[in-house]
Amino acid sequence: MSLAHDTEFLEGVLDPDQISRGTADRRERSTDWGTDEADAVLPDAVVWPESTADVSAVMEAANERGVPVTPYAAGTSLEGNAVPVRKGITLDLTRMDSVLEVRPEDRQVDVEPGILGQEVNDAVERHGLVLPSLPSSGRISTIGGMLANNASGMKTVKYGVVADWLLEIEAVLPNGEVITAGSKGVKTSAGYNLRDLIVGSEGTLAVITRATFRLAGIPKQVWGGRAVFEDIEDASAAVVDAVRSGVDVAKIELVDALSAEITNDYLDTDLPDQPLVFLEFHANHGIENEVEFCRTVFEDHGVQRFEVAESDAEMAELWEARREMADAFEPWREDLSPLTPGDVTVPISRYPDIVRHAKEVGAEYDILVPCLGHAGDGNVHYIVMVDPDDPEMVANGHEVSKRIVQRAIEMGGTATGEHGVGLGKQEYLAAEHGEAAVEAMRSIKRALDPNDVLNPGKVLPEE
Amino acid sequence: MSLAHDTEFLEGVLDPDQISRGTADRRERSTDWGTDEADAVLPDAVVWPESTADVSAVMEAANERGVPVTPYAAGTSLEGNAVPVRKGITLDLTRMDSVLEVRPEDRQVDVEPGILGQEVNDAVERHGLVLPSLPSSGRISTIGGMLANNASGMKTVKYGVVADWLLEIEAVLPNGEVITAGSKGVKTSAGYNLRDLIVGSEGTLAVITRATFRLAGIPKQVWGGRAVFEDIEDASAAVVDAVRSGVDVAKIELVDALSAEITNDYLDTDLPDQPLVFLEFHANHGIENEVEFCRTVFEDHGVQRFEVAESDAEMAELWEARREMADAFEPWREDLSPLTPGDVTVPISRYPDIVRHAKEVGAEYDILVPCLGHAGDGNVHYIVMVDPDDPEMVANGHEVSKRIVQRAIEMGGTATGEHGVGLGKQEYLAAEHGEAAVEAMRSIKRALDPNDVLNPGKVLPEE
Repeated sequence: MSLAHDTEFLEGVLDPDQISRGTADRRERSTDWGTDEADAVLPDAVVWPESTADVSAVMEAANERGVPVTPYAAGTSLEGNAVPVRKGITLDLTRMDSVLEVRPEDRQVDVEPGILGQEVNDAVERHGLVLPSLPSSGRISTIGGMLANNASGMKTVKYGVVADWLLEIEAVLPNGEVITAGSKGVKTSAGYNLRDLIVGSEGTLAVITRATFRLAGIPKQVWGGRAVFEDIEDASAAVVDAVRSGVDVAKIELVDALSAEITNDYLDTDLPDQPLVFLEFHANHGIENEVEFCRTVFEDHGVQRFEVAESDAEMAELWEARREMADAFEPWREDLSPLTPGDVTVPISRYPDIVRHAKEVGAEYDILVPCLGHAGDGNVHYIVMVDPDDPEMVANGHEVSKRIVQRAIEMGGTATGEHGVGLGKQEYLAAEHGEAAVEAMRSIKRALDPNDVLNPGKVLPEE
Repeated sequence: MSLAHDTEFLEGVLDPDQISRGTADRRERSTDWGTDEADAVLPDAVVWPESTADVSAVMEAANERGVPVTPYAAGTSLEGNAVPVRKGITLDLTRMDSVLEVRPEDRQVDVEPGILGQEVNDAVERHGLVLPSLPSSGRISTIGGMLANNASGMKTVKYGVVADWLLEIEAVLPNGEVITAGSKGVKTSAGYNLRDLIVGSEGTLAVITRATFRLAGIPKQVWGGRAVFEDIEDASAAVVDAVRSGVDVAKIELVDALSAEITNDYLDTDLPDQPLVFLEFHANHGIENEVEFCRTVFEDHGVQRFEVAESDAEMAELWEARREMADAFEPWREDLSPLTPGDVTVPISRYPDIVRHAKEVGAEYDILVPCLGHAGDGNVHYIVMVDPDDPEMVANGHEVSKRIVQRAIEMGGTATGEHGVGLGKQEYLAAEHGEAAVEAMRSIKRALDPNDVLNPGKVLPEE
């Protein structure tokens, strides 16, 4: 347990209503969605900056004193990314939640980091524009958190990750200095790419205080539906073949029979208890061509039904079920709860193998592992279901998780496609990138944050 | 002038046929396309590694001895990026020019850095695949050079920059350690993004020894043509409006009347001596919809003719003229030669302004500034034409260049959209990103290359 830090200096930096040392405020920011109450760490103080200058002033003062600062916003991270493990100050960015400027003539928007993803889209929709690649949590998670974790989601198969739409950031370095990185031009070769270094660094290298995104036009045609398969092998092979064949699909989500069953139990839906592929297509014209192309590919893999959403309401219901699935797993059949959902990502041709592996490893320990996820990206969310009161089963569950991650890395994939490293995935970093790469990351951390004040203890395993 | 370095240790590291100290070999690698003979710097030795192990061994030995190493391949850079200004060893990567593996089932290819861009496409074409975003120089420049400079080209408006298709690299750090960065999965949140930090660092942070790209399907429909305008204001406004309206165009290239005239003189083409917009569209179906959409937008801006290439031959001729334009400017009317072409990039709405500004600043000094470029990206190649025997005119020409760059930065754009910083753009780095950002870049350079051996003197201005 870290010792408390003296944070009295904050009163010289911010207004009183921007600082709290109350237990409720500190406790609320002591965990994230993936952290058990038992692993909660309370910060010594919570502050709410309202401007870049506030962030800069806090960082400069904290850095001088060696007091840790952990950026925090919605708290929806899954790997302990925003838990203040060395206490100190939690920098709550939710008051910096504005749309600063929409520039429809450039298809660009400037926002503050504490804004929710959906709020960005609410602001640009009237210009016919959209930030197309939000994660499934886009209604409840913030832009700053998305960028910090290099988040992505269902539409990544067509539109890339959130950060693929990022042009420029303003950020505060650990010493309080303010930089811009990237460009409002759509491309730049001017110096080191600090923008994409800071993206995905989970708030350990800098605090993003402004983000400029380019935007896409809202597609004129949207088609949604789902395909029903006899078994999971057919379903995952169909997805692989669709992606390999270049079907222009905006979402292509695999849901296994067990996930469908659990979802039905929980959300009172009536999904078939069979492997499903949820689909969405976007186009400005000729969408029926892509849908038919996809149907043809799926028929090669024995699809049983290929169903079109007949109305906006059906479409909304379809995706609501998929989106809510993440919450549908706890607890199930009274005694089973999920460990933190995994998010390994593998080259698409290995997708059937990694899903099969997850099931097989689970079976070896008599543990259920429902699988769903952004199949078009080769991304599988595997949910390891254990009885939390059975220590042996919990230990086995962690072993199952570990073996799935190890196999994904052996396949040329990644331990984490979108959730980030935080605390939970540090043990895999060297296996994935090599020890020399981890050492290079450490040297960058030391260079930019010599006093180790910004979100210390995250991402990089201890030497 | 740097002093010569002792490079005898190379004989202990490589085979004799991988080392040369001959003047011809050294002279050939003493300049790039943007460097005058007068500014040539000869390396002390040239080496040709044939494997990652070779690169690693050279780097480890050179690093121990503090001997500079400058990566080099096709030598087509424009800002002195590959000129060995501190002498030492030039690391010629052109023997590492293989396609290592094509994985059509994943739409991926692994290549070595010395391969030409077009050679990658030759290798994947039979699988119906393409690396879609090569620069115009893709037939003569290497993948390693493209990544090092974060290159892009005519098709960036649709497909992004070359590095947007990069999944994973293997690279050798200045100390000789080998790392991989990125993932063969299409997305990863596992640790700092060393891949995109190394991309665009111009060989100052690491030597890329392998690149894994994802690939696109070859589009089924391709349409090319050109639009002819009365004046440059109409032409650039038409481009802005097309991009803002979301016309799905694969190339949209502005060529001003003066560039057309020079091209005709040089290449014996018969382009209209008027502002032109060269166009290409890619689609799998319904391409005529996008073409007609674009035509409608252009008609709003008074387009005089909107001409379709009627055959593959016409199409080839069209783009041959555009591609060769870069070479068409030297010398012209006997006494005029171009300074290094600029490549500022601005938010698209400012494109007409930056083109107008280039013309106006030129006129102020009685200097012709033909403009062409990847207008859809907001990227303008301005060519400052001066008489090299007239020192005042040359000085004025540099002043014109400088004022164009400064204006682009004021507009929120970048000093260099695709050519990189090298030696020529260092003076603008702080203006564009802020002094604190440049200092952050320097600290990263010091962290990864404490002995300053890898392409020293580039990108970062001296403190």
